[in-house]
Amino acid sequence: MKRLTIAFAAALAAFADAPPGTQAVIDAAGAGEWRRLDPETTIYMELPHGRVVMELTTLFAPATVGNIKRLVRQGYFDGLSINRVQENYVVQWGDADGDNATTRRPLGRAAATITPEFEKGTAGLSIAAIPGPDGFADTVGFVNGFAVARKGERAWLTHCYGALGVGRGDTADSGNGSELYVVIGHAPRHLDRNITLAGRVIAGMEHLTSLPRGTGPLGFYEKAGERVPITRVRVGSDVPVTERLDIEIMRTEGDAFRRFVDARAHRTHDGWFLKDAGFIDLCNIRVPQRPAPKP
Amino acid sequence: MKRLTIAFAAALAAFADAPPGTQAVIDAAGAGEWRRLDPETTIYMELPHGRVVMELTTLFAPATVGNIKRLVRQGYFDGLSINRVQENYVVQWGDADGDNATTRRPLGRAAATITPEFEKGTAGLSIAAIPGPDGFADTVGFVNGFAVARKGERAWLTHCYGALGVGRGDTADSGNGSELYVVIGHAPRHLDRNITLAGRVIAGMEHLTSLPRGTGPLGFYEKAGERVPITRVRVGSDVPVTERLDIEIMRTEGDAFRRFVDARAHRTHDGWFLKDAGFIDLCNIRVPQRPAPKP
Repeated sequence: MKRLTIAFAAALAAFADAPPGTQAVIDAAGAGEWRRLDPETTIYMELPHGRVVMELTTLFAPATVGNIKRLVRQGYFDGLSINRVQENYVVQWGDADGDNATTRRPLGRAAATITPEFEKGTAGLSIAAIPGPDGFADTVGFVNGFAVARKGERAWLTHCYGALGVGRGDTADSGNGSELYVVIGHAPRHLDRNITLAGRVIAGMEHLTSLPRGTGPLGFYEKAGERVPITRVRVGSDVPVTERLDIEIMRTEGDAFRRFVDARAHRTHDGWFLKDAGFIDLCNIRVPQRPAPKP
Repeated sequence: MKRLTIAFAAALAAFADAPPGTQAVIDAAGAGEWRRLDPETTIYMELPHGRVVMELTTLFAPATVGNIKRLVRQGYFDGLSINRVQENYVVQWGDADGDNATTRRPLGRAAATITPEFEKGTAGLSIAAIPGPDGFADTVGFVNGFAVARKGERAWLTHCYGALGVGRGDTADSGNGSELYVVIGHAPRHLDRNITLAGRVIAGMEHLTSLPRGTGPLGFYEKAGERVPITRVRVGSDVPVTERLDIEIMRTEGDAFRRFVDARAHRTHDGWFLKDAGFIDLCNIRVPQRPAPKP
């Protein structure tokens, strides 16, 4: 009996005998189709059980990204904790004493409020659109590796799996980057334009998704001992070169990526599949990555 | 400082001050809007760390459901293991020796192959449609609590988060229910109509999603010691009444469910939200459940 598996959804699937499948498209992408991860817009979060690497976007959330980097460089997150893991929704971290004006950790030089960066104008913005429809927007696609949506003349980052967001209270400007979350379930796109997104997870997603779910309201851990300590968070530029994640990310503006999206929508190229879906939704497209070529 | 959280996506959110929010719709649903979970189409899987409860659908996968129940009642799964946990994709369980014709566990009275139940005709089928668009289908909606899609005169169960599927090999009829999987990531709808779905997780999803990811190809655990043992699997009718999950599920054919879907698409009714998405996608609708009323 052959091992009964279901086919590999990840971009890493290898069905070399069936070009132009997704892996064949990735393999055929020339050097110009890839970009190096920029250490100045990358943050590394070390947990006791592994490292999570996230890419930030200054294009969509410049003030928020600046504030996050300020907090990171002050060591704000070091020794804080993951306090919330809500099933099919988010993992959230920050200061568990954030509600307590006396004991909470000071924000230092970081701003306490930030004008919302929930969306931006489309002027000068080039979106590599993918075929629709999308129920939330007129057009969806990618900008510099980030999944985005557009309606009229407004564009925004989308709450796809792995998106990095900025917790806020009831007021729109209350998200300052001191409470961060990552989407760990089916894309909660209804959050789009209601809260600032600032990045996406590049590596180590499994260190967040496999955490025990919190049993309190909203998935908060009920006991302090359940919280997952954050060893340290650093901006990539401050991480020794030899310790950095040395990868390239496929440019979402190029022909290779367009072919990749097409291959993802027509998986019968990949063998095993019998029926062609003929479509792929925005949040099921993971931008290909590869180890950076050695010099 | 108010605790910075992001709003509650689950149907359990309680913003009683803001009717007609999702919780208000649930609270207002009369007794006729609910159905009892049927123990004869429910399976209970006991793991060392908790219990997973799944509802099966005889409407879409009658032969497969029959075979799964036959396997369960033979004790086929007892002492087998979860062998695969692939990030943002699936958890899969069955016989780790399934490839070995000598050592694998016999199927007993269960069939080794089943005519595919990937989709069915729409004749006589009543789908409670939700507003589109959906890129994979002409219409999407619900049948008896299950998320389904329709194109022309064919309808099928969809690979939403929590869907229970039947692993198969390269041939269409090779899925017999001895290898099962559950979707733990963003809905891989490209699998729809390529493999038989037979049910959905009703409770205990967190016992699957929080498992360590496998580091082998396709997320299989590389070492036997990493596998998660399955203590026991039973059909609900064979579980003592006092041990059963005693819940009701909202009827997806009723007015209350239609109002619930509408409230999910317009979350500004729920407070905190500033912008109305005006849409909700099929796989972000979790059918409401509640404890069964005491007699």
